[in-house]
Amino acid sequence: MPFSISSAALETAVADHLPWLRDLYRHFHRHPELSMAEHATADRIEQELTALGLATQRIAGTGVVAVISNGEGATVLARADIDALPLQEDTGLEYASQKPGVMHACGHDAHAAALLGATRILAEHRDACSGTYIAVFQPGEETAAGARAMVGGGLLDQVPRPDVALSQHVMPTAAGTIGKVAGPVLSAGDSLKITIHGRGAHGSMPHTAVDPVVLASSIVLRLQTIVSREVEPGTFAVVTVGSLTAGAKANIIPDSAELLLNIRTYDLAVREQVIAAIERIVRAECAAAGAPADPQFHYYDQYPLTRNDSGVTDTVTEAFVEHFGPRAVYEASRVTASEDFSLIPDAFGVPYTYWTVGSVDPARYRDAVTRGAVSQEIPANHSPHFAPVEEPTLLTATRAQVVAALAYLGAGREAD
Amino acid sequence: MPFSISSAALETAVADHLPWLRDLYRHFHRHPELSMAEHATADRIEQELTALGLATQRIAGTGVVAVISNGEGATVLARADIDALPLQEDTGLEYASQKPGVMHACGHDAHAAALLGATRILAEHRDACSGTYIAVFQPGEETAAGARAMVGGGLLDQVPRPDVALSQHVMPTAAGTIGKVAGPVLSAGDSLKITIHGRGAHGSMPHTAVDPVVLASSIVLRLQTIVSREVEPGTFAVVTVGSLTAGAKANIIPDSAELLLNIRTYDLAVREQVIAAIERIVRAECAAAGAPADPQFHYYDQYPLTRNDSGVTDTVTEAFVEHFGPRAVYEASRVTASEDFSLIPDAFGVPYTYWTVGSVDPARYRDAVTRGAVSQEIPANHSPHFAPVEEPTLLTATRAQVVAALAYLGAGREAD
Amino acid sequence: MPFSISSAALETAVADHLPWLRDLYRHFHRHPELSMAEHATADRIEQELTALGLATQRIAGTGVVAVISNGEGATVLARADIDALPLQEDTGLEYASQKPGVMHACGHDAHAAALLGATRILAEHRDACSGTYIAVFQPGEETAAGARAMVGGGLLDQVPRPDVALSQHVMPTAAGTIGKVAGPVLSAGDSLKITIHGRGAHGSMPHTAVDPVVLASSIVLRLQTIVSREVEPGTFAVVTVGSLTAGAKANIIPDSAELLLNIRTYDLAVREQVIAAIERIVRAECAAAGAPADPQFHYYDQYPLTRNDSGVTDTVTEAFVEHFGPRAVYEASRVTASEDFSLIPDAFGVPYTYWTVGSVDPARYRDAVTRGAVSQEIPANHSPHFAPVEEPTLLTATRAQVVAALAYLGAGREAD
Amino acid sequence: MPFSISSAALETAVADHLPWLRDLYRHFHRHPELSMAEHATADRIEQELTALGLATQRIAGTGVVAVISNGEGATVLARADIDALPLQEDTGLEYASQKPGVMHACGHDAHAAALLGATRILAEHRDACSGTYIAVFQPGEETAAGARAMVGGGLLDQVPRPDVALSQHVMPTAAGTIGKVAGPVLSAGDSLKITIHGRGAHGSMPHTAVDPVVLASSIVLRLQTIVSREVEPGTFAVVTVGSLTAGAKANIIPDSAELLLNIRTYDLAVREQVIAAIERIVRAECAAAGAPADPQFHYYDQYPLTRNDSGVTDTVTEAFVEHFGPRAVYEASRVTASEDFSLIPDAFGVPYTYWTVGSVDPARYRDAVTRGAVSQEIPANHSPHFAPVEEPTLLTATRAQVVAALAYLGAGREAD
Repeated sequence: MPFSISSAALETAVADHLPWLRDLYRHFHRHPELSMAEHATADRIEQELTALGLATQRIAGTGVVAVISNGEGATVLARADIDALPLQEDTGLEYASQKPGVMHACGHDAHAAALLGATRILAEHRDACSGTYIAVFQPGEETAAGARAMVGGGLLDQVPRPDVALSQHVMPTAAGTIGKVAGPVLSAGDSLKITIHGRGAHGSMPHTAVDPVVLASSIVLRLQTIVSREVEPGTFAVVTVGSLTAGAKANIIPDSAELLLNIRTYDLAVREQVIAAIERIVRAECAAAGAPADPQFHYYDQYPLTRNDSGVTDTVTEAFVEHFGPRAVYEASRVTASEDFSLIPDAFGVPYTYWTVGSVDPARYRDAVTRGAVSQEIPANHSPHFAPVEEPTLLTATRAQVVAALAYLGAGREAD
Repeated sequence: MPFSISSAALETAVADHLPWLRDLYRHFHRHPELSMAEHATADRIEQELTALGLATQRIAGTGVVAVISNGEGATVLARADIDALPLQEDTGLEYASQKPGVMHACGHDAHAAALLGATRILAEHRDACSGTYIAVFQPGEETAAGARAMVGGGLLDQVPRPDVALSQHVMPTAAGTIGKVAGPVLSAGDSLKITIHGRGAHGSMPHTAVDPVVLASSIVLRLQTIVSREVEPGTFAVVTVGSLTAGAKANIIPDSAELLLNIRTYDLAVREQVIAAIERIVRAECAAAGAPADPQFHYYDQYPLTRNDSGVTDTVTEAFVEHFGPRAVYEASRVTASEDFSLIPDAFGVPYTYWTVGSVDPARYRDAVTRGAVSQEIPANHSPHFAPVEEPTLLTATRAQVVAALAYLGAGREAD
Repeated sequence: MPFSISSAALETAVADHLPWLRDLYRHFHRHPELSMAEHATADRIEQELTALGLATQRIAGTGVVAVISNGEGATVLARADIDALPLQEDTGLEYASQKPGVMHACGHDAHAAALLGATRILAEHRDACSGTYIAVFQPGEETAAGARAMVGGGLLDQVPRPDVALSQHVMPTAAGTIGKVAGPVLSAGDSLKITIHGRGAHGSMPHTAVDPVVLASSIVLRLQTIVSREVEPGTFAVVTVGSLTAGAKANIIPDSAELLLNIRTYDLAVREQVIAAIERIVRAECAAAGAPADPQFHYYDQYPLTRNDSGVTDTVTEAFVEHFGPRAVYEASRVTASEDFSLIPDAFGVPYTYWTVGSVDPARYRDAVTRGAVSQEIPANHSPHFAPVEEPTLLTATRAQVVAALAYLGAGREAD
Repeated sequence: MPFSISSAALETAVADHLPWLRDLYRHFHRHPELSMAEHATADRIEQELTALGLATQRIAGTGVVAVISNGEGATVLARADIDALPLQEDTGLEYASQKPGVMHACGHDAHAAALLGATRILAEHRDACSGTYIAVFQPGEETAAGARAMVGGGLLDQVPRPDVALSQHVMPTAAGTIGKVAGPVLSAGDSLKITIHGRGAHGSMPHTAVDPVVLASSIVLRLQTIVSREVEPGTFAVVTVGSLTAGAKANIIPDSAELLLNIRTYDLAVREQVIAAIERIVRAECAAAGAPADPQFHYYDQYPLTRNDSGVTDTVTEAFVEHFGPRAVYEASRVTASEDFSLIPDAFGVPYTYWTVGSVDPARYRDAVTRGAVSQEIPANHSPHFAPVEEPTLLTATRAQVVAALAYLGAGREAD
């Protein structure tokens, strides 16, 4: 009997694969690989997909794609990120990282295992659905490089155009729960290196110099006016100068200064406004200083805005509620972190949703964990102590991917 | 016949020692040693002094002192600095530095040779003078450490209190000329490391931070008002922030920032005013930011003001004019560089003068060299190309030390 | 038959009073009076209330209160503001202001007429309701003085404690519609005069001065960091320096400077945070400048936050929808303007709601008026051209006050 | 017997005219007239010159010129300024100003009387000198308008080209003494009104504005860097923002702001550098703010640099020493005040000197007056208490003008 979104059959099907899921997860956790160098990880993913009888493609070196074509119906793209962080693990886990200084501290190991799990369920239960399922294992999320690389590497030509795209992320909320929110969920994040040019001189001869320290300081203060005066009050926008470096000695006026900025917005028009204001201010301040050369702007680590489509979010939420029950699904707050997932659906021009999956044992953190709230007691993503509880995290994440896909591919369903 | 300040006998006595002077100079030049590590240099100086029959003392490790006691009369302290710079020589001289990355690029080799020469002349011609001559070979001028170390190391207890102190410096002006100026001649120079404390946070959460980048920038701009508004217009004062460093990543607000300041003044009251203003502004700006901890001030590389005594300068100038002729002595401009010589007379509480000795071959730099003017064509002190012409530089420097001493010790003279 | 919230009987009862309402409205419009000087206006209000058989009280000079006691039940306080603006009317209306330079350009004339109308309906239809109705005609809203004055003048002692408080405002939206919103609806607005003290001097002698122009400028720039760095991103907060005045002549450094600030917030904790930050920054900047005297802070024109209670807003909205139909009631946006109404319920410690009433003829501004949107074509409040259309504005405003009161006082109802 | 610079005859000749000089002085003092409106003063001067048999010319309305042509020899131009100040006199003098709010508080009454006196002596003693003497009575010094107006009004065409120009000023130093200095003696002073344009808005809507208050503040801080970083340390330069005005209400962001600057320099190249830097900074800061219109620069009250020619100063000083004795002539300090005298010799392209004449009774201010020092006890120029002692001030000023002229026109002398 084919399972449906709500069926106990689905729950059982996933549970049956738990040993395999756990092995996969622990393997990935033990062998983390840095962004865009996930070679062994990608190999293992390909092996697993091949074992399911699926053809795989490598895109952008360490990206892996597999497509399940199952007759008429919608096309769903599900994406998991697979890279790890340059961090020394300090969890004490039996299956802790065996690679010094590299750690799956952001749960991408669970994302990869869960997407393999969902792909396996869908491949093994073709009777339960119809349509096309595209599993995308994406490298390099932590450096904002991977989604861009896969799109640049030909993803759009090598898989069918989806109707909808899905992704998820483990969070330090109660395991077994799912957070969803329509609209902006993750901020756009842009990093920007600004190099400004003065003219060096001995510290006792400022009149022969164009002092880049004074210039840089003036820029930093002037940049404050973007948020305080130019952005509409109450609109989210952050302009942080995280680093300012100029000179090395007290008595030498240096030639240049370097500023590293981070920009966060929830609205692309605001993002454009802020970036234009930054460049306008920096150029003008250089002119005010009589700088001998133009400033240089180098944008990097650019994360897109993640803005969940209302329709897709509603459809998927309804399916989650049907399968997990209403108490397991909560309205998440948007957060100021960033993701590069949305570059993929944006490249296709299709709607998407992105939800969060809890990973904390409520029994262990009884007082700290509430629905959707994150306590400072609990090691969060990017902490050397980050350690999702395997159960029910892996099962929930896998079932969530299946349930969300079935919302579009389930028997008798059509795409929104 | 004892020579006098003006006698050809003195000129001859010095000239006779030229081969020895040149050997000494070339030896020092070939074997430069960094500040406070002038061990071989000090050894050689002691050997030479011992050969003259003088008792020597080592003070502060590499400082050397010898005293010529010659009956009634004034006591004159003459000081030469002996350390080299961390610089790769690029002069092509036959006697270039044999130590990679270390070079006598500031003429201290000539200073040492000339003071040995003057000491030798005075030791060999006791009939020409009466009184006491203290030759001080000082280490560590380039790091402002040596004079302080010799004073701290007991100089005041180990030599008689002088009536007057003398020092000289080679400059890229015409060899054979001497520059003199009464009053402030070299600026006081103070370096200052300021550490300011904010509170770090993720770049997207400035409200949980106290942003030290904004705080540091505000400090830099506010410091400008010291010179622009607080110091009397037309009074020399420089406050340079040579270095500002804070943070390393665009998206992390750092915990602290560090500023390196250099302060230059010609007047100790102005120096005190400027330092008080800096501390007042920095503390208040930290308060404005709500900084969680007080700023820290660490002063270093502190050079005293060099302020030539009018009486001593007049006396010595008169002697120079008598010996070298009026065309060889010019009114020098004060410069913004600094020296630690004055710490020694200031410790004794005695007046001093400090003059400059030309070192450039007028024949070679015919158009570039004028009386007292410094051309950019000519490699200056601290340049890897700095190369004083040996003659007449060594002779002039040696004679200048003898003549200046005789102004106080010469037969029939008394101290001012 | 007693009318109910939804009955046509209520509509008829109000419509029957239209000629009287229009006369009242035009009288008030013709005879506007400035804040806290609404003597004739208050007299006329008292006459009308007395004619209804109600006892009246004068509070704070020009405030008027009347109470309808009608047996068991809830107590509702309804408030209308009655003052005009110092503005020369330019509407061309037949009943335009007869007082040069004074104009009802903010609709308080309509507020007063509508509250008199509602009081008349409730006084004449005691069978339709039970409980206590307190009509409060408040002076001095435009200067934030009136509500404070009535509370200070004994309002709490002279009327029963209400269960709920109500107020409304005409807006340049479509006449016949009502805007409602729960939570913060009008910002808290605080004005602040800061006087900073420097030390004057001739412009050529800055070293004898403490320059208040530089100090004030430094303060203005530093204040920008409150919104850019201290307030949580996305939280509404505005710190505007609307005026900065210092000095009168180019060549005289003045003694002091004056800044006028306006602060807007939707959250009292943010308001406290912003005010504390302003005072911290100003005091510290004065210390940075070495100011000879402490800065002075004078707060004025302080408007409270208007934060509609959710329960009251829901109850009143339900009543509006029942009476006016769902199309007439829309979700309003909160605005950055301010009101002093909430000081009254806050003094009593009771919940309240505040809604808006449209005043623009949709037929005249066909393209400009949409539900809740305000076009720049339409003269808005405080414009010399502001001219609410009398019908249906007056009827709607009067009915709204009755309907909102009946939500609590209607037969068989109880207070929330 | 013709008198010479050193003769007692000259002293007697001047002393004989003391009653007339005092009458003139008191008349001018009683009847002060504001800048460029010195009509009665000019009339009186013309009467006196006519009485001496000299032809007079009026230039620029209230400027008066007379020429004594006396054969071969040099041509000397002597200038006195004649205008008063808008100040209420508070000296209690018998001959105090009879015009409320107008006062000769800067000694121009003495200047005018002394120049008339010198002209009379030279006219009456043609045998004592040969050459040409041009007496220039200049209006409007206090507003920097008069010298410019006379040059613009044809002065160069209406008098012979002088070889040298002379002027003097009474100062609150000991009466009977004369201060002289070669080189820069009075600073160049330029006032500058800068209007910057933003875009106004309600204080709660900064995003629709370009905030001129923030812009102006940024400009003020940035202007500090001209003196702190751009001008050579130790070089005199002052940039004062004496006035900053923007806005009138706390809750309205104004459209524009106005800054009044005063610039003081002793070197025209520095003046040009400072002015260029100000314009560069203001323009760039407006660009940084996104200002909708260019800033406007209006220069006014522009005083030239007064730089005494060394040769002329030496010649005149020698004559002063010869006549008054060495104790009466001292080396003055340059001051930061300004004068427009130099515009006249600069227009002719001839050298000049400008000296000061003491005006304080040493007996009265025994402890306060020293050679050249100015005590704060003594009412200075521009004080409502400024009251030169008539004797010997008038005699000294008159003799100084004669002696300085004779240095060039005296029998047997030639121009430098």
